[in-house]
Amino acid sequence: MNAYAKPAGETQKISTGLAERLAGDPVHAIPGDVRHEACRAIVNYVGCALGGARHPAMDKAIAALGPYAGKPEASVLGRSERFDPLFCAFLNGISSHVHDYDDTTPSNYIHPTSPVASALFSYASVNRVSGPDFLQAYILGFETVTRIGNATYPAHYRAGWHSTGSIGVFGAAVAIGRLVGLDAQQMLWSLGLAATQSAGLRDNFGSMAKSFHPGAAAQSGYRAALLAKEGFTTGPTPLEGPRGFAAVEAGEYDLSGILDGFGERFLLSTNTYKPYSCGIVIHPTIEACSLLKQENDLDPEAVASVTLRVAPLVRDLCNQRPSTGLQGKFSIYHAAAIGLVRGSGGLAEFTDEAIADPRLAAMRDKVEAIADDTVLEDAVRVEVTLRDGRVLKRDLVGSLGNVARPLSDRQLEDKFKGQATVVSAARADELIAMCWRLEDLDDVGELARRATP
Amino acid sequence: MNAYAKPAGETQKISTGLAERLAGDPVHAIPGDVRHEACRAIVNYVGCALGGARHPAMDKAIAALGPYAGKPEASVLGRSERFDPLFCAFLNGISSHVHDYDDTTPSNYIHPTSPVASALFSYASVNRVSGPDFLQAYILGFETVTRIGNATYPAHYRAGWHSTGSIGVFGAAVAIGRLVGLDAQQMLWSLGLAATQSAGLRDNFGSMAKSFHPGAAAQSGYRAALLAKEGFTTGPTPLEGPRGFAAVEAGEYDLSGILDGFGERFLLSTNTYKPYSCGIVIHPTIEACSLLKQENDLDPEAVASVTLRVAPLVRDLCNQRPSTGLQGKFSIYHAAAIGLVRGSGGLAEFTDEAIADPRLAAMRDKVEAIADDTVLEDAVRVEVTLRDGRVLKRDLVGSLGNVARPLSDRQLEDKFKGQATVVSAARADELIAMCWRLEDLDDVGELARRATP
Repeated sequence: MNAYAKPAGETQKISTGLAERLAGDPVHAIPGDVRHEACRAIVNYVGCALGGARHPAMDKAIAALGPYAGKPEASVLGRSERFDPLFCAFLNGISSHVHDYDDTTPSNYIHPTSPVASALFSYASVNRVSGPDFLQAYILGFETVTRIGNATYPAHYRAGWHSTGSIGVFGAAVAIGRLVGLDAQQMLWSLGLAATQSAGLRDNFGSMAKSFHPGAAAQSGYRAALLAKEGFTTGPTPLEGPRGFAAVEAGEYDLSGILDGFGERFLLSTNTYKPYSCGIVIHPTIEACSLLKQENDLDPEAVASVTLRVAPLVRDLCNQRPSTGLQGKFSIYHAAAIGLVRGSGGLAEFTDEAIADPRLAAMRDKVEAIADDTVLEDAVRVEVTLRDGRVLKRDLVGSLGNVARPLSDRQLEDKFKGQATVVSAARADELIAMCWRLEDLDDVGELARRATP
Repeated sequence: MNAYAKPAGETQKISTGLAERLAGDPVHAIPGDVRHEACRAIVNYVGCALGGARHPAMDKAIAALGPYAGKPEASVLGRSERFDPLFCAFLNGISSHVHDYDDTTPSNYIHPTSPVASALFSYASVNRVSGPDFLQAYILGFETVTRIGNATYPAHYRAGWHSTGSIGVFGAAVAIGRLVGLDAQQMLWSLGLAATQSAGLRDNFGSMAKSFHPGAAAQSGYRAALLAKEGFTTGPTPLEGPRGFAAVEAGEYDLSGILDGFGERFLLSTNTYKPYSCGIVIHPTIEACSLLKQENDLDPEAVASVTLRVAPLVRDLCNQRPSTGLQGKFSIYHAAAIGLVRGSGGLAEFTDEAIADPRLAAMRDKVEAIADDTVLEDAVRVEVTLRDGRVLKRDLVGSLGNVARPLSDRQLEDKFKGQATVVSAARADELIAMCWRLEDLDDVGELARRATP
């Protein structure tokens, strides 16, 4: 039992209790498997940030807001420009999420590392942060996000919030709050300022604004910690109050688990990494269709129609007939098409060009998706009817990358290399090595600064 | 019928319809009484911004975030520092709201001018904006805020949102969007980016974070317009979509009125200005208690107990036993005390010192407030029992400053002068004159730059 692990406090005082633990004595005795999982998450994160660094959403954000940024001191992962660290946190959040390739906690569909690590790498690029301090701040931010996420799932997400932004902001506020040394009162204000900046609507899935969410969360959380450090006050009950986050943005919730086992059980151990660069709920469809193509040596021209049976949530989230690559990431029809036509689901399958590919467009038009509440969320039933009348079937439960079938360290490295085209292959190898030995770094800023072209 | 006034579109396309009207041809034919009301709102706003410019919330915000601000080009009303315009918009929002002295639309309790004008004055301090263009952008921003406010009131506010922030952001996005010349598609994205930054929890009433809300709204809306101009995309239905603002943040709403009479009927005509620097729902209590003191030449020492009957909303909002000046602004007990002891409710009654005043503290302890749903929100029934057994009663319906009893232009000028202590009396007169003839200014930035010490 370490300094964070105390008996669960009253739910009525959850914000104060959480702030006290987060501001408590540093703990470096995080279990080895948790520290390794943190490194896996960071390998995955830095690769994603490099992979998204030249996305048009980044160019537009820099063109629009770069002229108003502060002193060019901090680094953006994957870009050569320098800006103030708040703006760099924002940009890291966009790049690391824009391809929908980042990590996911399956219990609440949050992508926690983008908002947390985006703030941390920006901070570390201008302030000396040791590896152990960085890892601890990251893990505390991650745990805060996923625990608040679980406490308010599914009501918060179902209401229409993109929780990667709306809950991610707490993680950035906590992580930066650790590094700037907030005391318990200040940490409460940091949580309060995070809560009152909590935002992000699911109406934006399939547009650039989706990646704006973790960007804004990283920046808003960073800002929260800086203001709290100066004594900028908030209300007393940002999480549990009748006008606080949970009541206002979830309605139904149970906050009692937030402190339960905090510092002893780490939700980071349940983190997952995507093999496909799109919404996680269409991963089973991509994999099942790819396997069906491979196992039957399928000619796409031979397909007459495709019927998918998926969980209602999956159809609700991904019922888009796409006209852009970003929309394709939330299209169950496109997922089936890339599986059946290309047998893959990497970055190349979610560009505007891929959406315009006539073979994929023709296949999408053949696909129908049926919401079926007997199908699990991480599953699909595929039925392909061929022009010659034959019917091919493929069921899949538990897609590659989920907790039971995790990507190996080697697969994460390959995923990193596949995205890190803005740096040389040698530099990519060097960055991967730095991520694995993050704990041994004297100055994590070195990693941030070397992760630029 | 001008360019903005078209038949109300389908609610299903409200965002597109609103964006098309907002991006339409400039209209300078706004009725004279509406233009005068705009000037009254600006007189009130600039006075409040000057009055709050040296509040500790401003000093802390500048200390925390000033080091990260961009090129020092733009002005903050009432301060000598210069920063980038996005940060100045944020600061104007804090200063103009921190004393709870700004305007209110009584149909939805929003304080619309703070988020809208805070962005506009900052923008105008670095970009030449003519008086007519400024006024038009301001009025369109104001109308957008108040119409979205009415469409989602009371569900949005009752849920716990501080709508001055969570809806104010739309007004800033629209106002700056006008000045940067957004087309209809870009204006839709600006509304989309506003919606996805909509934030601000009522848990913060009585703390600095309350004024953070219009500050963040001004900055976020400004940012939305700049990103939209560069083509940063959002979802298609930020207001009406099943995962859009109204569904997610109100639940119950009727958007059909947003476009109804847009450009013909101006809700600005219903705007009100506060005679007391605190939450508007305790104004009747201050006024009734002040009158009761005056009419009976009341000695505070003679009071044994005080019973207030107020609308349930009033008690819900203002049931604080304060220990800071900011909390006092949301304390029905403090409201009665300052009326009965001092007979006034200006800035001096809501300082930390006033809260600590033993005479006010003693009087607060004598006050009880009863929620009574037969009492209107802009009303109070006061019953004072004296030590000698006598009972004094005072009912009040419709407080000073409301639509039926508006502050006169002269009273607004006096309110301005009472707050404008950061500039000389001569400069205050000059600024007031510039506000009244705003329409004739070639460059509104001149006003912004002269409104500094």
